[in-house]
Amino acid sequence: MDTIAWKIKKHQGILVKWLEEEAYERNHSLGNTLENHVIADTERHHYQLIYMGWSGVKFVYGLLFHLDIKPDGKIWIQQNNTEMLIGQELVSRGVQKSDIVIGFRPEYMREGTGYAVA
Amino acid sequence: MDTIAWKIKKHQGILVKWLEEEAYERNHSLGNTLENHVIADTERHHYQLIYMGWSGVKFVYGLLFHLDIKPDGKIWIQQNNTEMLIGQELVSRGVQKSDIVIGFRPEYMREGTGYAVA
Repeated sequence: MDTIAWKIKKHQGILVKWLEEEAYERNHSLGNTLENHVIADTERHHYQLIYMGWSGVKFVYGLLFHLDIKPDGKIWIQQNNTEMLIGQELVSRGVQKSDIVIGFRPEYMREGTGYAVA
Repeated sequence: MDTIAWKIKKHQGILVKWLEEEAYERNHSLGNTLENHVIADTERHHYQLIYMGWSGVKFVYGLLFHLDIKPDGKIWIQQNNTEMLIGQELVSRGVQKSDIVIGFRPEYMREGTGYAVA
């Protein structure tokens, strides 16, 4: 039987591994000049991938992903500024579809998608 | 004598306390409908204050502050999307001016400010 604490730990591991792989790939992609950073607050359960760096004299900063793990163990996708389908990615890494909430969509748009409404 | 490990710990404590106070104040300010969240990755040493929530059917998300503590113990202000003078705030909380870098400004603009260049 899965306890909630176990589920949070499992989801935390999946998120950090995925974000670290994304950061590595982006940092090593051809022509990349920016630094991609994983931010993982494993106490408050906020997880991000951000980038920053210089483009000439201009400082560039942006957020790619922000995900939360809620106290019930569900993963909320709060921001996705890429064309990647994060839900599918997480399912392929072992997260149950019913444990994923597309947080940035209104509830009526979460219905009928197979993902959780809340 | 201050060791670097001690300085990192001290700066971490100051940053988290300040960000938690900022979040509390904003979450309890009159008319606020958004959630302000501290994100503190005390392993990779990234520190943020972000906000999110709903404005009608529109999801609102934004970053207020992003600061890093570098391996030498210095605090780099990477983003400040407020009118607050973070450098002054940190100095008033016990950070040495020479331990603060305004990371989002080009180096030539960091000179002569009293803050560190790098």
